[in-house]
Amino acid sequence: MGRPTSSKLRVAVLAATGMVGQRYVSMLSNHPYFQVAVVTGQNSVGKKYGSATAATNLPMAEEAKRLTVKATNAESLDDVDAVFSPLPTEVAKTLEPELVRSGFKVITDASPHRMDSVVPLIVPEINPQHLELLERQRKVKKWKGVLVATPNCTAAGLALVLKPLHDALRLKRVLVSTLQAVSGAGYPGVPSLDIIDNVIPYVKDEEEKIETEPLKMLGEVGRDRISPAKFEIGAMVHRVATTDGHLESLYVETEERFELEKVTKILTRYRGEPQKLKLPTAPAEPIMVTNVEGRPQPKLDRYAGTVPGMSVVVGRIRKGLDSKSGRLTLLSHNTIRGAAGSTILTAELMYRKGLLG
Amino acid sequence: MGRPTSSKLRVAVLAATGMVGQRYVSMLSNHPYFQVAVVTGQNSVGKKYGSATAATNLPMAEEAKRLTVKATNAESLDDVDAVFSPLPTEVAKTLEPELVRSGFKVITDASPHRMDSVVPLIVPEINPQHLELLERQRKVKKWKGVLVATPNCTAAGLALVLKPLHDALRLKRVLVSTLQAVSGAGYPGVPSLDIIDNVIPYVKDEEEKIETEPLKMLGEVGRDRISPAKFEIGAMVHRVATTDGHLESLYVETEERFELEKVTKILTRYRGEPQKLKLPTAPAEPIMVTNVEGRPQPKLDRYAGTVPGMSVVVGRIRKGLDSKSGRLTLLSHNTIRGAAGSTILTAELMYRKGLLG
Amino acid sequence: MGRPTSSKLRVAVLAATGMVGQRYVSMLSNHPYFQVAVVTGQNSVGKKYGSATAATNLPMAEEAKRLTVKATNAESLDDVDAVFSPLPTEVAKTLEPELVRSGFKVITDASPHRMDSVVPLIVPEINPQHLELLERQRKVKKWKGVLVATPNCTAAGLALVLKPLHDALRLKRVLVSTLQAVSGAGYPGVPSLDIIDNVIPYVKDEEEKIETEPLKMLGEVGRDRISPAKFEIGAMVHRVATTDGHLESLYVETEERFELEKVTKILTRYRGEPQKLKLPTAPAEPIMVTNVEGRPQPKLDRYAGTVPGMSVVVGRIRKGLDSKSGRLTLLSHNTIRGAAGSTILTAELMYRKGLLG
Amino acid sequence: MGRPTSSKLRVAVLAATGMVGQRYVSMLSNHPYFQVAVVTGQNSVGKKYGSATAATNLPMAEEAKRLTVKATNAESLDDVDAVFSPLPTEVAKTLEPELVRSGFKVITDASPHRMDSVVPLIVPEINPQHLELLERQRKVKKWKGVLVATPNCTAAGLALVLKPLHDALRLKRVLVSTLQAVSGAGYPGVPSLDIIDNVIPYVKDEEEKIETEPLKMLGEVGRDRISPAKFEIGAMVHRVATTDGHLESLYVETEERFELEKVTKILTRYRGEPQKLKLPTAPAEPIMVTNVEGRPQPKLDRYAGTVPGMSVVVGRIRKGLDSKSGRLTLLSHNTIRGAAGSTILTAELMYRKGLLG
Repeated sequence: MGRPTSSKLRVAVLAATGMVGQRYVSMLSNHPYFQVAVVTGQNSVGKKYGSATAATNLPMAEEAKRLTVKATNAESLDDVDAVFSPLPTEVAKTLEPELVRSGFKVITDASPHRMDSVVPLIVPEINPQHLELLERQRKVKKWKGVLVATPNCTAAGLALVLKPLHDALRLKRVLVSTLQAVSGAGYPGVPSLDIIDNVIPYVKDEEEKIETEPLKMLGEVGRDRISPAKFEIGAMVHRVATTDGHLESLYVETEERFELEKVTKILTRYRGEPQKLKLPTAPAEPIMVTNVEGRPQPKLDRYAGTVPGMSVVVGRIRKGLDSKSGRLTLLSHNTIRGAAGSTILTAELMYRKGLLG
Repeated sequence: MGRPTSSKLRVAVLAATGMVGQRYVSMLSNHPYFQVAVVTGQNSVGKKYGSATAATNLPMAEEAKRLTVKATNAESLDDVDAVFSPLPTEVAKTLEPELVRSGFKVITDASPHRMDSVVPLIVPEINPQHLELLERQRKVKKWKGVLVATPNCTAAGLALVLKPLHDALRLKRVLVSTLQAVSGAGYPGVPSLDIIDNVIPYVKDEEEKIETEPLKMLGEVGRDRISPAKFEIGAMVHRVATTDGHLESLYVETEERFELEKVTKILTRYRGEPQKLKLPTAPAEPIMVTNVEGRPQPKLDRYAGTVPGMSVVVGRIRKGLDSKSGRLTLLSHNTIRGAAGSTILTAELMYRKGLLG
Repeated sequence: MGRPTSSKLRVAVLAATGMVGQRYVSMLSNHPYFQVAVVTGQNSVGKKYGSATAATNLPMAEEAKRLTVKATNAESLDDVDAVFSPLPTEVAKTLEPELVRSGFKVITDASPHRMDSVVPLIVPEINPQHLELLERQRKVKKWKGVLVATPNCTAAGLALVLKPLHDALRLKRVLVSTLQAVSGAGYPGVPSLDIIDNVIPYVKDEEEKIETEPLKMLGEVGRDRISPAKFEIGAMVHRVATTDGHLESLYVETEERFELEKVTKILTRYRGEPQKLKLPTAPAEPIMVTNVEGRPQPKLDRYAGTVPGMSVVVGRIRKGLDSKSGRLTLLSHNTIRGAAGSTILTAELMYRKGLLG
Repeated sequence: MGRPTSSKLRVAVLAATGMVGQRYVSMLSNHPYFQVAVVTGQNSVGKKYGSATAATNLPMAEEAKRLTVKATNAESLDDVDAVFSPLPTEVAKTLEPELVRSGFKVITDASPHRMDSVVPLIVPEINPQHLELLERQRKVKKWKGVLVATPNCTAAGLALVLKPLHDALRLKRVLVSTLQAVSGAGYPGVPSLDIIDNVIPYVKDEEEKIETEPLKMLGEVGRDRISPAKFEIGAMVHRVATTDGHLESLYVETEERFELEKVTKILTRYRGEPQKLKLPTAPAEPIMVTNVEGRPQPKLDRYAGTVPGMSVVVGRIRKGLDSKSGRLTLLSHNTIRGAAGSTILTAELMYRKGLLG
């Protein structure tokens, strides 16, 4: 009602002045489906968004810069068609259900509701069909709106690579060792004194997320619930002195014997619904395989592909200790494929399926 | 014959102007058994050792600084009682056998001869009995001298931690993911352009060494050869932007069920012959266990213990995916425990066993 | 003669597999005036250029990737219309004059001939008129070709900022303290062991270049020679752990009193001949002024402006200790504005003036 | 009254769980004059000091680890003989005068009272005689206790080097460009996202402190006030990715002509009262001069000398643009010489002068 100048959906970005929030606004600048109508924040309420984010250098639409930052609550949201939520865990836990009860359609990359049995946890290439769960969500929760989640920044790239492998080779066990960028901890995040000339072999709650979220995403939607995929994931996480790009080295055990060339083929050819629908934020190749020695590397590969930050780059594909195991290293941009990008791609998918607007 | 001022053994350090070479000379300053009598180098032959190494800041005995750098060959070595060799691989391959044939006792941390069936590969806490192999070496090789090797910088710390675990729980399979310091590549080594804001998931030939050397060291000396330990190691290596200290995260599978407390106990209590003999370079605790969250860390733990750089620090001991598996992270100083320190400790052990001098 | 498919000039890039060489080829991809016809190198002669540079990730035209790397000598150069030379100093010293004697038109960012009295040292925005010197060069040197130089990577950004200041306020003395990126030392360049958690307050020969080159560039072409600008520059240089972007903090003393706003205005409005001619590599604003606190910063500002890496960003404009002095900080991309970019822009200017082709 | 086991003075360390606070407790472990009797903190009140600081690795006396952290207020301080205060600026502003009014003897490295005309600002080698000001302080302020300040972390090393130069050559103007370590901003301090692959040419309020504090310290105590030294300081500050050690490059103009050898001699021979009194924390050489190319460097030189972190290392002594000017680079450990160390040394001096206890 009364949107004469644009037929785009009006969206809100919560916590828009944060590091991931800015990534959203930047990626949504000149977006064909969505227009950022509301930005919220905490310490800069009342300021122009452009001045509140002047210290960074992500390119943003002038239109977005002119928005006034509002407080993060239902009143600020006006009649937006969708709400993107990169809220901190504690805030998301209570505010997101509140917004959904009021009728908002919330797509979140916060963690609290990811494992809720009626909240779809989506990487659009992997499990678009999990959106069916929304029907059940409506019945069970009696919410007026909907809540859709996207996974942890490390789990996103991991699940994307595991999906075609599981389809073709039936995974049995995956051990993953991560080398995660400091941007994964948000801003101000990791103190420089902690990470210069150092590694921290720990990220709070991260291993649990990596070990459970991909199994939900690769699971099957049953009548009442999602049956998680039937393999095991073990994680060992590390924080390193890189700015962006989570590197993950995998040791994979499968039910089937396989040749290495097959793995390359499976990964390279993998396409999902976003590629078929040619969604705006869908990279041409969700998974790119490199055979250059010593690659992928965060600094060189984090923006590879047609939509910078959305392709996962895989390299060092090699044998494991027996004929049913293999090793590989993947790199995934943690604030794009691991956060803003996956969530926007999910919204694009929902839009095309008539679930938004 | 004519050593009036000292009853110490006279030793030579090859490639003494290199990064690891300097570590040797520094650790041998004021050593109770050994006196550095000869230092060799490549580009600074004829210079005083002190001026050839002025750019670094390792503390060194004045005596050592006054030595003149000689060329790296047999003629330079005079009548030294032992030769420490941190030579580059290609040089070590031919020069070390040549020196041993001429009668020198060479203790090397270069890689070419480590897997030779009659060369003992020693971490003194683990396998002092492998020195028995020297008898067989003499027979087979007809060398006048002896050649003893110490392991790869990553394998050293790994093997030290695996030894007590294998003794108590019988290892079945170990998967290790490494985050290795740039000093592991020597000097000039890794270009800064390659590692600032980056990770390189590759170190040439490193995975092969990690997967084989510990099995030899944990093996049994038989009549003809060493039977390697009967478990498997799979490695995934990474270079990160730390200066010193290799971090290794292990996923360990055992034949026996175990409780986590037992692992802590096994590791904490572990002592080897160097501790019993109170060798000068032996740390009181070869393995230290920390339960501080997020430790060990390279910057904070690489010099822990009574002999800085010689103790391996273990943390994050936790369960694996079943009752016969576990995870832990270890930190080992790569140029001390992983190179100069282990080699000097080996020489000390040989000295006390009457194998030197 | 026989260039049916293109009217572009054919150019050669020497040392094209090096770090700066790759920058050239990348910036010349799809260039409206020039087409890379020859690439030379040292260790990869005979290989395809694409495979010789596979380890990096600068975008390059497919056409360039298909070129075969040739040896760096006159025979390789065929009948190219211009030669770009980022050769190492020692090679440039003898090879460049040799090429010019053979008739090649060489535009170099190597250092040996920059201060030669008949070699124009050009930053196209500053001193396009110095190209007049070529006439004198021809007479004096009897060369068949021509040699034009561009300045040191630190001097380029510095001179660009000093030019409008000197024009308006008559400079008396400039003290500059630099914080230079590791890419300034080429590849492999600065060892990571030297720069992680460190600063090196020294770059060989750099202070001399910074103190003389800008004076030549801001000088006047006289009958016999260039009279250097009549002010003094004092430099204190430092290497820091940044990958790209030289930061320079200036203390400037002038003959005229001035207000800070005037400085901002002078710098912001500055335009040169490249802007008037709308040369392809000319940034819309050669100098951009920021008033965001704590800017410019290498990571955030090195690619600012319409031609990434070609605009110098100035910030922290503030008073000095008296009314005829001021302070400011500038950031200049050292391998673009400080090397490949300035040289290509110089070639574009020469092309439009009829000095090439 | 009832100190049977020790005749040492009982001291309190405020904000003892902070980064600088821990430095104090570490340096005061086994101190011959002082015993840490009270430690205060903010978030860990009630915890054992050892567990509150378990995450770091500074060596500390077991005695200190067993102390219980108290709240930061007068009630916590018991009857201590001296109070060390590395409080945050805002807290120090009101709490320090409050403590002094109650009779405590406070030695502070916080900034708010440094420029107060009756508060001595001390670097013990430079201006021990400024402690005379305490008499005047008592009269003017009517305080029962005393307040003594030590300078800003950058100003401390700077003033120490300027003192002998000013004595011998009469300084006219000093321009200083700094490259400051992240520990200068405390903990958590500088976010890693801000400093990896970056430089920040700004530190809040730092330039003002550097430009005024040394002039007070090098001034003369008059009847009513300190007459500041009569030369000018201009500062340009930068934050870089080093953990510890502030590097400062100086351009110095003097009233007298001088030879470079004289500068070396002046600096090398400089000794102050702490050296004469052989105070426990006094380094044998307050200023060390290196002529190794490219030194001093933070990683290599920050712990040089007999008391690690207390000697300032100077290098690159070279001419300026005329015969009355020169350039040099100095390195000073910012949390030791620039904070805890200078303050403890000041307390030692006061103790020996009968001003404490």
